[in-house]
Amino acid sequence: MKNKLKALWAEGKPAMNGWCSIGNPFTAEIMAAQGYDSVSVDWQHGALDYADMLAMLQAMRASGVTLMARVPWLDPASIMKALDAGAMGIICPMINSRAEAEQFVSYMRYPPQGQRSFGPTRVGFAMPGYGTQMNDEVLALAMIETQGGVDNLEEIAATPGLDGIYVGPADLTLGTQGGRLPPGFDRREPEMVDLIKRIAQVCKANGIKACLHCGTPDYAAQAIGWGYNLTTVGGDSRLLAAAASASVKRFRDLTGAGADGNEGAY
Amino acid sequence: MKNKLKALWAEGKPAMNGWCSIGNPFTAEIMAAQGYDSVSVDWQHGALDYADMLAMLQAMRASGVTLMARVPWLDPASIMKALDAGAMGIICPMINSRAEAEQFVSYMRYPPQGQRSFGPTRVGFAMPGYGTQMNDEVLALAMIETQGGVDNLEEIAATPGLDGIYVGPADLTLGTQGGRLPPGFDRREPEMVDLIKRIAQVCKANGIKACLHCGTPDYAAQAIGWGYNLTTVGGDSRLLAAAASASVKRFRDLTGAGADGNEGAY
Amino acid sequence: MKNKLKALWAEGKPAMNGWCSIGNPFTAEIMAAQGYDSVSVDWQHGALDYADMLAMLQAMRASGVTLMARVPWLDPASIMKALDAGAMGIICPMINSRAEAEQFVSYMRYPPQGQRSFGPTRVGFAMPGYGTQMNDEVLALAMIETQGGVDNLEEIAATPGLDGIYVGPADLTLGTQGGRLPPGFDRREPEMVDLIKRIAQVCKANGIKACLHCGTPDYAAQAIGWGYNLTTVGGDSRLLAAAASASVKRFRDLTGAGADGNEGAY
Amino acid sequence: MKNKLKALWAEGKPAMNGWCSIGNPFTAEIMAAQGYDSVSVDWQHGALDYADMLAMLQAMRASGVTLMARVPWLDPASIMKALDAGAMGIICPMINSRAEAEQFVSYMRYPPQGQRSFGPTRVGFAMPGYGTQMNDEVLALAMIETQGGVDNLEEIAATPGLDGIYVGPADLTLGTQGGRLPPGFDRREPEMVDLIKRIAQVCKANGIKACLHCGTPDYAAQAIGWGYNLTTVGGDSRLLAAAASASVKRFRDLTGAGADGNEGAY
Amino acid sequence: MKNKLKALWAEGKPAMNGWCSIGNPFTAEIMAAQGYDSVSVDWQHGALDYADMLAMLQAMRASGVTLMARVPWLDPASIMKALDAGAMGIICPMINSRAEAEQFVSYMRYPPQGQRSFGPTRVGFAMPGYGTQMNDEVLALAMIETQGGVDNLEEIAATPGLDGIYVGPADLTLGTQGGRLPPGFDRREPEMVDLIKRIAQVCKANGIKACLHCGTPDYAAQAIGWGYNLTTVGGDSRLLAAAASASVKRFRDLTGAGADGNEGAY
Amino acid sequence: MKNKLKALWAEGKPAMNGWCSIGNPFTAEIMAAQGYDSVSVDWQHGALDYADMLAMLQAMRASGVTLMARVPWLDPASIMKALDAGAMGIICPMINSRAEAEQFVSYMRYPPQGQRSFGPTRVGFAMPGYGTQMNDEVLALAMIETQGGVDNLEEIAATPGLDGIYVGPADLTLGTQGGRLPPGFDRREPEMVDLIKRIAQVCKANGIKACLHCGTPDYAAQAIGWGYNLTTVGGDSRLLAAAASASVKRFRDLTGAGADGNEGAY
Repeated sequence: MKNKLKALWAEGKPAMNGWCSIGNPFTAEIMAAQGYDSVSVDWQHGALDYADMLAMLQAMRASGVTLMARVPWLDPASIMKALDAGAMGIICPMINSRAEAEQFVSYMRYPPQGQRSFGPTRVGFAMPGYGTQMNDEVLALAMIETQGGVDNLEEIAATPGLDGIYVGPADLTLGTQGGRLPPGFDRREPEMVDLIKRIAQVCKANGIKACLHCGTPDYAAQAIGWGYNLTTVGGDSRLLAAAASASVKRFRDLTGAGADGNEGAY
Repeated sequence: MKNKLKALWAEGKPAMNGWCSIGNPFTAEIMAAQGYDSVSVDWQHGALDYADMLAMLQAMRASGVTLMARVPWLDPASIMKALDAGAMGIICPMINSRAEAEQFVSYMRYPPQGQRSFGPTRVGFAMPGYGTQMNDEVLALAMIETQGGVDNLEEIAATPGLDGIYVGPADLTLGTQGGRLPPGFDRREPEMVDLIKRIAQVCKANGIKACLHCGTPDYAAQAIGWGYNLTTVGGDSRLLAAAASASVKRFRDLTGAGADGNEGAY
Repeated sequence: MKNKLKALWAEGKPAMNGWCSIGNPFTAEIMAAQGYDSVSVDWQHGALDYADMLAMLQAMRASGVTLMARVPWLDPASIMKALDAGAMGIICPMINSRAEAEQFVSYMRYPPQGQRSFGPTRVGFAMPGYGTQMNDEVLALAMIETQGGVDNLEEIAATPGLDGIYVGPADLTLGTQGGRLPPGFDRREPEMVDLIKRIAQVCKANGIKACLHCGTPDYAAQAIGWGYNLTTVGGDSRLLAAAASASVKRFRDLTGAGADGNEGAY
Repeated sequence: MKNKLKALWAEGKPAMNGWCSIGNPFTAEIMAAQGYDSVSVDWQHGALDYADMLAMLQAMRASGVTLMARVPWLDPASIMKALDAGAMGIICPMINSRAEAEQFVSYMRYPPQGQRSFGPTRVGFAMPGYGTQMNDEVLALAMIETQGGVDNLEEIAATPGLDGIYVGPADLTLGTQGGRLPPGFDRREPEMVDLIKRIAQVCKANGIKACLHCGTPDYAAQAIGWGYNLTTVGGDSRLLAAAASASVKRFRDLTGAGADGNEGAY
Repeated sequence: MKNKLKALWAEGKPAMNGWCSIGNPFTAEIMAAQGYDSVSVDWQHGALDYADMLAMLQAMRASGVTLMARVPWLDPASIMKALDAGAMGIICPMINSRAEAEQFVSYMRYPPQGQRSFGPTRVGFAMPGYGTQMNDEVLALAMIETQGGVDNLEEIAATPGLDGIYVGPADLTLGTQGGRLPPGFDRREPEMVDLIKRIAQVCKANGIKACLHCGTPDYAAQAIGWGYNLTTVGGDSRLLAAAASASVKRFRDLTGAGADGNEGAY
Repeated sequence: MKNKLKALWAEGKPAMNGWCSIGNPFTAEIMAAQGYDSVSVDWQHGALDYADMLAMLQAMRASGVTLMARVPWLDPASIMKALDAGAMGIICPMINSRAEAEQFVSYMRYPPQGQRSFGPTRVGFAMPGYGTQMNDEVLALAMIETQGGVDNLEEIAATPGLDGIYVGPADLTLGTQGGRLPPGFDRREPEMVDLIKRIAQVCKANGIKACLHCGTPDYAAQAIGWGYNLTTVGGDSRLLAAAASASVKRFRDLTGAGADGNEGAY
C-alpha cells in the first residue's frame, strides 16, 4: 500500500485536500468523489468521534483517495487509533516545541523507528499486508499555530521523521497576534502573510512539506505559489452552508419573497 | 403549535423548502440555518432511516423552521412514526388513485377525522400540548409521479383532508413517458412542462397547494410563476457535491495541476 | 426457555408490565431492574427503532424479566424481527377485525401453526435451543382501540392462537367516542369504564388475558380488580419527566427561587 | 456498473455467496475479503437494520464483490431502499404465488419495466452514472419456502423479470412437511432432496438461476452438481461461533481444564 | 450568545442544575423541559460518550436552558470538544492543585487568555457569531474531591479565570476520610458538613461560585442556605429508577401481588 | 459481585480468554456463548470505541463470563470509564516503568487504595451494591511489550496492587529485537521463547498472574505449561476470517471453480 500523496509530491505536484467535519460516511463518500488528492477527517473540531471517522474511512476506501485524519490533540491513543483505522497521514494540532514534535513522530511508527503499538486489526483487511513497512508510508504533519510553535519553528521542522507542517491560520493569528486580529482563514495582513510565507520557506529548507488551510481556491492557488505543497479549501460544512445559502438567496431574489426570519447563521 | 408554512401560504407567499438526504443531525442543523421556510427529511431516497430522522428533527427544532418528512411508501407505520417524531407535514410517494389518497390522509389525523394512533411520546415534550388539535396543523402532501397518478389527478386532488400535491419530476417523467425521456429535474420538454403546469392548475382549482422538486433556483422561481406554492431546490447531497467539485475545479484551473484520477462522480 | 409471564398467570397472579419509550439500552437496564414482571419496548410510539430495540433486549437479557415489544403496525416484517430479536410477546396495535387478528397470530408462530419464517440468528445465542417449540411460549396480544375493534371484540377474542387483548385507553377513547372526549389514560367516564370492564369480561369468557395501559398504580390496581391480568403504568419517559419536574418544583418551593421560564412541558 | 455475478454465470460458473447476519461494517469488510463471488446482507433474520446495511454496503464497496441484500418481506419500501443503498441483487422471502412474484419484480426496476421510484441519492456517488440502465443489472431472486411457493413453482419461475429462485431449506422444510421434520440446512431426507433438486430443474427450464442456502461447503458443492448456480454457506455468525467454539474446545482438550459452565449456545 | 446562568447569578439567584447520565437525546429533551436553569451532560460517569453528548446538546438547544458538560478528566481534547459541541460551561473532575486549575482554565479560552484552539464548526451554526467573545461567557467549574484539592483549596479558588468550584460529595468523602465513611451524597457527618460549608465560604471570598451535587431537593435547598449558588439534584438515571421502583411498589402494595424476584437494584 | 476469574485462579486452574475486536453487541453475545472463562473487549486495536464497548458489556452481562477491557493507553479517563461500564479487569498497554505501573493501579481503585473516581452510574444497576469493595475484585493487568518494560520487569511485577502481566508478543518482538524479527504471535525464536518464559517466572515470583496473547490453542496450551495463568487465542476478527476463508477454499476445491479475484486479505 503506497501513499499516493507522497508519489504526487515526488512528481513536484501540489495537492488539493478535502476536509470532512461532518461525522457521516455518506458525506465522506460524496467528498471522496469530487476529485481531491486527499481527504482528511477532522476529529479535532469536526462534529464527530472515532466511530464516525472509522465508518468514514471505510466508506471512502473505494475511492482510492489518500485518507488522513486530524487528531484532537497530541495523544498516543488517538494517533494510533486513527492509523489503525486506516489514516495514511496524521495532522496533529498545537505542536509547540521540538520535544512535542518528537513525541508526535514517535507515535506514528513501529519500533525501532518509533513506539507505535502493533495491531492492524481493521487495516489488515482493508490494506492486505499492512505491516512495519508502513513506517515509510504514513505522513506526520505537525500544526504550527501558537507563538511557541513559531518560536521553535526551525527546530520543529528539523525533527527526524516529520513529513510536513500544516498551518491553521485562525489559531496562528490568535496565537501570535495577542488578540489584535480576529480569527479566520485567507489572511491578508502583511505580518500574517509574511509568517505564512516564512513557514513554507522553513519547510523547504528542511526538506519537508508545507500545508495550508484555506477558505477559497483562489487563496489556495496563491499559497501554492508561495511554496505550499498541499492546500485544504473550506470543508464540507462550509461548502454545504454556502451552497444552500446561495440557492435560497437566488430564489428569494428571483421571486421577491422575503425570508421568514430563519436566515443563515455562519 | 401552529404550522408556519400554512401561515405563509395564507399570506399568499411562496415557500422555499430545503431537502435533507444525508442522515446526520449536523447537516440538518446546517440546512435549517440557511433561510428555508421548511426543511424536509427524505426517508425515501435519502441515505437515512427513522433513527437518523428523529435525531435530525431534534437538532432542527431550535431553528423554528417548519419540519417535514418524505416517507418511504404509503404505509401507516412510517407516516405515524414520522409525525410522532415531530414532522409537521408528510410527503407521501406514489399516490396513484383516490383510494390511496384517502388511505394516506386517514393515517395523518386522529379520529374521528382519521385513524392516526395517539401517542405523542416525544413530540409531547418538543411541542407542549400536542394533541388532537394537530389535525388542523399537519400537512398531507401526495406525490403524483406515475401514469396512474396523472390519470386520477382530479380525483386525488379533491380528496378531503389532502393539503397539496408534491411533484417529483424524475419519476413523473419515467412514469408517464414510456422510457422515451431520461429521469431528471427541471424539465424543458413541452409535454412535461404542460403536465407540470396542469398539476398546479388542478391544485388551485381544488384549493390545495402545488409543490415541485427542482434542480435550480431559477427553475423554481419559474415554477412559482406557474402557480406552485412551494419548491424544493437541490438537496444537501447535491449542493455539497456541486460546491466541492467547483472548488476543486477552480483550484485545478488556477494551479494547472491536473486531477490524479479520482474525479467527481455525479 | 419458558415464558415466565405465562407461568405467573398460570398461578392466577396479576402482572405489572414496564414500558420503554426511550431508545436506549441503559434506560432499559434501569427499567428491567425495578421489579416489573415484564418490560415492553414500544416500537410504535416510542422514540426508537429496531436497532434500539435490539440493543435494549440484549441489555435486559441478564435481568430475567419477560421481554415484549409493541410493533408499529400489523406487519409481518416488524413482528418477525421483534421475535427474532428476543421478544417473548408482541403487542400489535389497531386490530379491527377477526381477519386482522388471524393475520397477526399467523405471523407469530412457525408452520404448521403459522407462517413465521425460521431464522433465530440472534435469539439462538441468547436462548440456546430456540426453535419451533417457541410457538407455545410467545404471547400474541392484540390491541383493541377502535370502533371496529370494539364491534368485533367477541370474534377477535375467539381467534385461535390469540393470547390476550391489550387495551390502549387513549386511542380507544378517540376511536369510539367521536371526538367527544379527549385522549388519556385512567378513564373515569362511565361509558369508558363500562367498555374497559367489558373487554376484560370478554377475554375471560374466551380464556385469554386482559391487559390495560394505565397512568397510575392506583388505577392499575383497580383494573386488576376488574379482571385485568396485566397492567402497564406510565412508562420511562413519563416517569422520568414527573420525577424530575417534582424535584425541580420542590427545590423552587423551598428556596423561593422562581423558574427562569424554561418550565416543564408535558 | 456491470453485475459481476451475471458475468460469472454467463461463463457457466457457479458462485459462492457470503452471508452477513451481524450488523457491522467491519465484519462486512472481513467477509468481503475472503474470496466470495458475492456477499449478501440479511436484513430479514440478521441482527441488523437498514442503517447497518447501508454502512456495510459502503464498507464493502472497495472489495469489488457483488453485493446483495435479503429484505425482511415483500415490501416496496425495503426493496427500493436496499437497491438505493447499493444492492445489486435482492433476495425476497416468502414468495408464494405468481402475483407476489410479479409484485416483487415490479419493485426492482424503473418504469416502464417496473415501478421502482427514481432517486439514486447515495448510489449515484458510489456508482457514477447509475440510472435506468441498472434495470438490466439488478438481480431479483425470489425465495421459495412455503407449500404455496412449491405449488406455484412453475408459474413463479416463469415470471418475466425474475432472475432466480433462492431456496431456504429450513423454512421450506417447515412449510411443506407439516411439522414432521425439524428446521435446518443440508437436508438429507429423500423427499426434501427431491424437492430441492426439482427447484433447480424448474429454474433451468425457465432460464433462471437456482440458489441454495447451505450449512457446509461439502453440501454446497453437491448442490452445484444438482444444477444450483449459487450457494451460500453458513454466514458470519455461525462461522464465528463454530471457529471460537472449536478453539476453546481444543484448548480445553490440550490443557485438561474443564469449562466453567459458560459453554457454547447454538 | 449570553450565558443565562451568569445572568441569573448576577441577579443573586441560586440555580437548579439537571444532570444527564443517560446517553440519549430524547432523555435530554425530557430533562431540558422540566424547568432546570441549566442541564449538564455527565461525560465522566455517565453511560455516554462524545457522540451521545453532541446529539444531546443538539436536542436540548431548542429549550433555551444553559447547557454544560462534565468532562472525563483534565484533558484538553475533551474540554475543547465539549465546548465546540456547544457546552457553555465545563465541570472538570479531580482538580488537585493550582497548576491543574491553571491548566484547566487555559483550555477553556482562546488566546491570548488561554490556549483553546479555534474551530467552532458546529457551534458556529447553533450559535451564530460564536467567536472569541465567548471567552467571557463560558464557565470553568473545577471539582474539589480529593485531599489534595482540599489542601490547595484557597490557591485553586484564586485561579484567575476560574468561575466556580463544583463539589462531588461522594469522591470528597472517599478522598478525605481515609476510607472511614462510605461514598454518597447529602452528607450529614459534622466533618463533612463543615468541609462542604467551608468550600462555599472560600468561593465567596474569592468571588467565584459554589456548586454542589445533591441527592434530594431538601438537602439542596439547605446548601443554598450555606451559600451555594448552584445545586444538582439526582440525575436522570436515579430519578427514573426511583420513580419506576415507587410505581412498582405501590402496585404491589395495592394488589398484594409479590414481586417475582426481579427486584430493583440500586 | 465476585470476580470469577480470581476464583478460578485460586483453584489453580488456567483460564481461556476470548477477544473482541469487532465493535458489535451481537458478536459479543456470540463470543460470550462459546465457553471462554473471560472475554475482553479490545478498545486499543479493536475497531471500536467506548460506546461500542458499553453496548458489548451490556449484551454479555447475561452470560456470566468475566468481562475485561484493554484500554487504548495508560490514561485515567479510559480506565475509569471502562470500569464504570462494567469491566472486571483492565489490560493496560505499554507499561514501561514502575512509575507507570503505579499510576495504572492507582486509577483502578477507589481511595484510599487509589484515585479512582466514584460514580457507578451504569454498573450500579448491572451489579447491585457495586461500591468500594470492588477494589478487591477488579484485576489490573499491565502489558509488557517494550524494551523499557522488559528492563524494568521485576520492579513492575512487584508493584503493589498489580494483579498480573499481559504479554503481547507482536509488540514485545518489535520492541525488543531492533527490527530484526517481524511482528506476530506464537513466537518460536529461542530468544523470544526465553523472554516469554522469563516473564511467567517473574510473575510467579511476585505472586501475580501471567497472561499471554496467542494465535493458536496449541501454542496457548504450551504456554500454560510454561506457567501462564491465562491465554487468549485469536480474537473474533481472525476467527471469522479464517473460518470464512476455509469455507470458501473448501468450496473452490470441491467445485473446481476458481475465485474471481476477490481473494482473502489477511
